Amino acid sequence: MILELTMRNIKVTIAYDGTNYHGFQEQRGTKLNTIQGVLEECLSALAKKPVQVIGAGRTDAGVHAGGQVINFMSDDWPVPVDRVTSALNSILPRDIVTLSAEEVPANFHARFSAVAKSYRYTIYNGKWHSPFMRLYSYHIPKLLDLPAMQKAASNLLGKHDFSAFRALGTPVRTTVRKLYQIQLTRSADLIYIDLLAEGFLYHMARMISGTLIRVGLGKITPDEVSDILASRDSHRGGPAAPARGLSLEKVYYPPALD
Amino acid sequence: MILELTMRNIKVTIAYDGTNYHGFQEQRGTKLNTIQGVLEECLSALAKKPVQVIGAGRTDAGVHAGGQVINFMSDDWPVPVDRVTSALNSILPRDIVTLSAEEVPANFHARFSAVAKSYRYTIYNGKWHSPFMRLYSYHIPKLLDLPAMQKAASNLLGKHDFSAFRALGTPVRTTVRKLYQIQLTRSADLIYIDLLAEGFLYHMARMISGTLIRVGLGKITPDEVSDILASRDSHRGGPAAPARGLSLEKVYYPPALD
Repeated sequence: MILELTMRNIKVTIAYDGTNYHGFQEQRGTKLNTIQGVLEECLSALAKKPVQVIGAGRTDAGVHAGGQVINFMSDDWPVPVDRVTSALNSILPRDIVTLSAEEVPANFHARFSAVAKSYRYTIYNGKWHSPFMRLYSYHIPKLLDLPAMQKAASNLLGKHDFSAFRALGTPVRTTVRKLYQIQLTRSADLIYIDLLAEGFLYHMARMISGTLIRVGLGKITPDEVSDILASRDSHRGGPAAPARGLSLEKVYYPPALD
Repeated sequence: MILELTMRNIKVTIAYDGTNYHGFQEQRGTKLNTIQGVLEECLSALAKKPVQVIGAGRTDAGVHAGGQVINFMSDDWPVPVDRVTSALNSILPRDIVTLSAEEVPANFHARFSAVAKSYRYTIYNGKWHSPFMRLYSYHIPKLLDLPAMQKAASNLLGKHDFSAFRALGTPVRTTVRKLYQIQLTRSADLIYIDLLAEGFLYHMARMISGTLIRVGLGKITPDEVSDILASRDSHRGGPAAPARGLSLEKVYYPPALD
């Protein structure tokens, strides 16, 4: 008898408030509350057997997501794809929300198939912090010099060795990354730093944001940011701006996989 | 010997995330966590003697404020007025923020001197709730008919007996109130209902919002809202939309007191 098992690969886009989580990635051997852990628990409950989740970005403790992407493989998966979103949302805690779900080719891998990601760093640049934004932004009471920050940001565009904006973590093959876009916008008391890159080194978005904030405070000049980049010295870049201001906004895939 | 006591009257504008509070007003004889209780505790700590706080609006449990106003009287008050904001913010929990403080005439009373107040009700009208707005908005997945809601809202403008939009609570002298403005705005998945009135009956903002939502869902017509208003029957108005969507945005005072 030949038993044909249909392995299915399902891609799910999620948003979450990272405040109460120890980051995305499950830490084996610990009982810490992670996004991955909660997702695996909920998906396994639906599948009635263990499901393993692959995440596009391993967001740190306290970092949020407006558009994180995960995928999981399962044979015998019992929930029709068009009902995965509502099935998941009915059992997920309210700080994790499924936005969409779709079946993808077998070779889709949330992390390795990604061709670009965008992150947003949010600064609350009013005299007193907003009680509504306190978990989703970094409060800087002193008025930041946005044009100077913009100038410094433009010096980071393109393909560079971003070692100066990297915290030591998992070893990587290369510290060269391509930064496609970096945009700063002020909207009332909020300042957004929007970064689009083919990939991000560990803490890169937060270290770039922290460095731009130093420019905005007049502590370093935009030109010094070019020097810092060229130095490849992580002691000169940063410090990393706090996790709560950061959100993984979107993950991009090649059209054939999307 | 004549001891001259200078009684000072200080007005403070505050914002708060009401999620973790049992409303503004302290409930005598209980140990519930209230905005007033926390403020009195902090102000008394600064004054080194008991300070009583008067609030402009007695927001319900879970209701927020972007611009609540309080005042307190104190003789021998030790903190210069221009330092009250930072002194308070240094000891307040992070979900209550002091925005400004100023000395006002002796006859200023945060509640009785107010000539108008504005409230904002926030609806999240996307298919799935945003994890970032879950504590600050009411999620309605079905697309609301904004033009119908606007038409219904305009029927409520002006001076009316708003008994149909009132929950029983503290007895009031009159149930007639003047609604100066009621504006509906859509911004992406958010819908704001902005209400400006000389005063609000108990649950009035939430019952008007709840009624407009029923219009937006097609359950009642804009004309029926006029009938409900005319009926003065609180069983026909509402139901009150959930507290978490509501925020007291601004309190208005006569120029002489402001």
